[in-house]
Amino acid sequence: MRTAICEMFDVDFPLFAFSHCRDVVAAVTNAGGFGVLGAVAYSPEQLDTELSWIDERVGGRPYGVDVLVPGRIDSSAADANVRLADVIPQRHRDFVTHLFGKYGLGAPEPLSASLSAFADELGRRVTASGAGGLVDVALRHPIRLIASALGPPPPEMVDKARAAGVPVAALVGTVEHARRQVAAGADVIVAQGTEAGGHTGEVSTMVLVPQVVDAVGVPVLAAGGIADGRQMAAALALGAEGVWCGSVWLTTEEAETPLSVRSKMLAATSSDTVRSRCRTGKPARQLRSAWTEEWDEAQESPGALPMPLQMLLAEGAMARITRAAERGDPGARELAGYFVGQVVGQLNQVKPARRVVHDMIDELAAAVARVRDITYDDAPA
Amino acid sequence: MRTAICEMFDVDFPLFAFSHCRDVVAAVTNAGGFGVLGAVAYSPEQLDTELSWIDERVGGRPYGVDVLVPGRIDSSAADANVRLADVIPQRHRDFVTHLFGKYGLGAPEPLSASLSAFADELGRRVTASGAGGLVDVALRHPIRLIASALGPPPPEMVDKARAAGVPVAALVGTVEHARRQVAAGADVIVAQGTEAGGHTGEVSTMVLVPQVVDAVGVPVLAAGGIADGRQMAAALALGAEGVWCGSVWLTTEEAETPLSVRSKMLAATSSDTVRSRCRTGKPARQLRSAWTEEWDEAQESPGALPMPLQMLLAEGAMARITRAAERGDPGARELAGYFVGQVVGQLNQVKPARRVVHDMIDELAAAVARVRDITYDDAPA
Repeated sequence: MRTAICEMFDVDFPLFAFSHCRDVVAAVTNAGGFGVLGAVAYSPEQLDTELSWIDERVGGRPYGVDVLVPGRIDSSAADANVRLADVIPQRHRDFVTHLFGKYGLGAPEPLSASLSAFADELGRRVTASGAGGLVDVALRHPIRLIASALGPPPPEMVDKARAAGVPVAALVGTVEHARRQVAAGADVIVAQGTEAGGHTGEVSTMVLVPQVVDAVGVPVLAAGGIADGRQMAAALALGAEGVWCGSVWLTTEEAETPLSVRSKMLAATSSDTVRSRCRTGKPARQLRSAWTEEWDEAQESPGALPMPLQMLLAEGAMARITRAAERGDPGARELAGYFVGQVVGQLNQVKPARRVVHDMIDELAAAVARVRDITYDDAPA
Repeated sequence: MRTAICEMFDVDFPLFAFSHCRDVVAAVTNAGGFGVLGAVAYSPEQLDTELSWIDERVGGRPYGVDVLVPGRIDSSAADANVRLADVIPQRHRDFVTHLFGKYGLGAPEPLSASLSAFADELGRRVTASGAGGLVDVALRHPIRLIASALGPPPPEMVDKARAAGVPVAALVGTVEHARRQVAAGADVIVAQGTEAGGHTGEVSTMVLVPQVVDAVGVPVLAAGGIADGRQMAAALALGAEGVWCGSVWLTTEEAETPLSVRSKMLAATSSDTVRSRCRTGKPARQLRSAWTEEWDEAQESPGALPMPLQMLLAEGAMARITRAAERGDPGARELAGYFVGQVVGQLNQVKPARRVVHDMIDELAAAVARVRDITYDDAPA
């Protein structure tokens, strides 16, 4: 294929695979796409290990890294003297304790104890300085892209990437954000529709992509609602130079998805997701679950905290919920969930990541041929 | 163009134009598309007049009619002995009176008086028997399609349409609804994404269309998020046989849209819509306005009534709000709004409807050519 993105990133097939799992990243890159590792799951040391693992397997083929640096987060995260776990209000801790009791997960260990161990480090990965540490590690590897998943890329990140000759991508949910991110130095815009998994806006991919393409002078990747070759063909028709997919990898053989969550995804329809603040503090699309329903709808819910506090609280609880769900605990299975887009309704089969890429190549070719045949005789009188 | 839909409906260009305005319907049909008149705006007598007007102008070219027959509405609407205006609770009337006061529309005339005149008739147009009256009128004209905009087409409607040799279309927002509508007799499915204006579900067009295409054995039109030829090309890539557009006609020269609302639409971005029950009682996407904010967010809001009661209350109030907005009343301009999809962000120019069709034809050809060029060299190693 020939798009500006293919040339810019030296790929055959402009399919970008966002994943927290190094196996997926390497598999997609080796299949002719471009893997992007979500770094927020890792400490700088862990990230270094993951990227070295990838380097050993991709033989110089291109891949990238994604960090999360939201423009607005709770001010406590910027204060190195504050223990973030201590900032979480008792009312919110109590609600989690209540949920553990209600869903039969037994008397919880005191949340603060389990949280403190990793809360500060995790919470500060999403600050400009915390993400900077991840960026420094990433740039010591032969990465070909740094992406900012939320908010404009901070100036230091852009400067470091420029110095290393690495393009910067930014995810956006509105035309206004796209303009702002390009002004902040983004070389590629990922226009992500509301149907996407994870942090997402309200405008759909179909509506967002052509407007972003018209508004910015840099290549645009489409994200949200793309899990097969027909959807990739649609994204190209909208003016995108390639696609950015996240959800479709979650049910691949390589994915890190816990089996209890994967089986929920395989069974889910496209109506079984919800955009909620209850997991990170910012609106993020995820599987609908007892966790999302309790936080969003229960009378006694205290409402989500700002990022990163809600993220600490939720991830601390979710780690325990997931372990219990994996053991078959029925209450934990109700609470368990994960970020995923509306395409979850199409994910009905576990495949190797490489096969997902190859299927998408074949489906894209078929979709393009179909549209060509339909419109061949075009232009009515 | 050559699609199953083109053959079935004898059109050159599979673009279906939903509008409450006969001028738009005739203009699109005469430009090689297929106009569909929304009948719920009319009494049977008025509908007869509108369709006769269209018949005189389209010279036998194909057009259709759309009715609204939701499966579940307030039981009062089925009881001919109930005056619907009397069923609206005082608390809800009081809230409208409060809004009129707050936005400076002066002391309102008693709402019940202004409502009673048309409430019963309007409210019962959305019952199976009320819609049946509209269908009877429509089938006395040379229509080529009857569409059911909400809920499965009632058996009597399907029987009458079959007897007249007129295909039935049904709008759906989920795969499950698509299967149900086909089982109820729909010959064509309009798969409508959440980004669409008016009554709409939660799943986006990008995600919904391919799943509906795979699930049903009848031709599928894509709706929601389609206002230019790139979006039409995307819909065809997703597997649709054509498209169904509503919002794009609202800013055409012919449209019935009041100027005060049209200027809001021309200025709006794609983030300026909201899916709310506050206009009809069922979730419908519309311009965000003081009306939607007050009903959805104000502490004192009593919440929306079920259909058709909320529709009566809102349309009664909106008729007066729109008149005041047209006079330039600033409070009324804040409250005024109308159904429109997220594509409102693309509607920045008033054009004749015919020109919209011609632009879409040209843009489609360009988009298909672009995708063909990008993918010509396809199938990476």
